[in-house]
Amino acid sequence: MNKPPAPDVRWHPAAITRPLREQLNGHPSAILWFTGLPGAGKSTLAHAVEERLHRMGCRTFVFDGDNVRHGLCSDLGFSQKDRAENIRRIGEMTKLFIEAGVIALTAFISPFRADRRKARSLVADGDFLEIYCRCALAVCEQRDMKGMYAKARAGEIAEFTGVSAPYEEPEQPDLILDTAQLSVDACVDQVLRLLSARGILPKQGMSDMKLPPLDRI
Amino acid sequence: MNKPPAPDVRWHPAAITRPLREQLNGHPSAILWFTGLPGAGKSTLAHAVEERLHRMGCRTFVFDGDNVRHGLCSDLGFSQKDRAENIRRIGEMTKLFIEAGVIALTAFISPFRADRRKARSLVADGDFLEIYCRCALAVCEQRDMKGMYAKARAGEIAEFTGVSAPYEEPEQPDLILDTAQLSVDACVDQVLRLLSARGILPKQGMSDMKLPPLDRI
Repeated sequence: MNKPPAPDVRWHPAAITRPLREQLNGHPSAILWFTGLPGAGKSTLAHAVEERLHRMGCRTFVFDGDNVRHGLCSDLGFSQKDRAENIRRIGEMTKLFIEAGVIALTAFISPFRADRRKARSLVADGDFLEIYCRCALAVCEQRDMKGMYAKARAGEIAEFTGVSAPYEEPEQPDLILDTAQLSVDACVDQVLRLLSARGILPKQGMSDMKLPPLDRI
Repeated sequence: MNKPPAPDVRWHPAAITRPLREQLNGHPSAILWFTGLPGAGKSTLAHAVEERLHRMGCRTFVFDGDNVRHGLCSDLGFSQKDRAENIRRIGEMTKLFIEAGVIALTAFISPFRADRRKARSLVADGDFLEIYCRCALAVCEQRDMKGMYAKARAGEIAEFTGVSAPYEEPEQPDLILDTAQLSVDACVDQVLRLLSARGILPKQGMSDMKLPPLDRI
C-alpha cells in the first residue's frame, strides 16, 4: 500500500562496493608501497610485479613519477612541504584505487617516515604493504641510470634524496628487498610470497594459463 | 654473443598497458563526466549507471564529493580558483583510472566550461563523455535533498552554484538527460545507449547473467 516515490526524488545509495568489485575481479585489492633511494629499483620492481600479477589475471596499476609528477602533482616541487603534499595526494588516490578493486603499486622515493605513516593510516590494516627497496647509496650512485646523481653532485639538482636531502629508512616495513644483491626475478618472487601470505593473490582457477605470454599479445 | 646485462641494471619498461588491461576486463575504459546544478541527479545517476555496468561485468568507479572532497581535495574550498584546482585534480585522477582500465564516473557540479574543457583535453577523443543532467533551478531547489539551497538562500553557504555562484551549461555535451522529466531508469537507459553507440560496452559473452542480482550477493 505504500505509494512508490516519484522517480525524481528516489534516493539511490552507492550499491557497488569494494567487496563486490573484488568478487568480480577474483582477488582482493591492496596498496604495494615501494620506497627507497633514487636508483634502488622501485619503479623497475613495481612494473615487474605488475607484469606477474597481470598474467595471473589481477587488476593492477603502477604509479610513478612519470604519470603522477607530470599530472596530478605537476604543481608541486621537491621541498619537504611539497613532498609531503605529493605523498598525501598519492595516498588519497591509491585509497580510491583499492576501493575500485585495483592492486595499486606506487614507486616513489617517499623519503619521510611521517608521510608514509600518513598514507598507511588512510586505509585499513593489511591494505598497505610497505616494501623497502634497500640498496646502499654508493650502489645507487654507481648505477645512476638517469644521470641524476651526477647532476645532484654537480649542484644542478637541489634537494636530491641521498645527496642533498635525507632518506628515512622504514622501521617496520612489510618487506625488505636487497636490490643490490638480488635479481629482479628474485625480488618479484619475494613480493609474490608476501602477497600470498597476506591472502592477496587470486583464488584457484586463475593462473598464467588464462593469458597468452605478453610478447604474443 | 651479446653478454646479458647484470640483473641489477636491467631496465624494465612498463609492459602492462591500457589495451592489455582492457583486454583482461573485456571492455574499454572511459570517463563519464556528469555535470549539472546541485540536486540535478548527478550522483544518483552515476551510481545507478555504475550498478548496471557492474552487473554486466564492467570495472567501474564513481567519484563524488563524498570520496574526493574529504580526501584528495580536502585542502580546497569553493572559490573559482579552488573549484578549478578541484576539477584539475579529478581530471588527472580519472585519466589514471582509464589507463588502469576502469570506467570512471564523476558526479561533480563542475560549473565552469573552461575547467570541463581542460579535463576533456587531458585524454584522447572519445575517452571523455560529458553528460549534462539538465534540470531547472526551481526544480532542483524544490527537491533540495540535503537542505543546501535553503542554507544558501539564508546566506549560510557562500558561493553556492545556482544561488550565489554561476553554472555554465555545456555547449556540446555528449548527452543531455532531462532529469526533471525522466525516471532514473530511463536516464540510465540513455547512458547505456550512448556507451553502446561509442563501443564502450563489453563484447558478447558478458551479460547480466554472469552475476547474481545484487540483493542476493
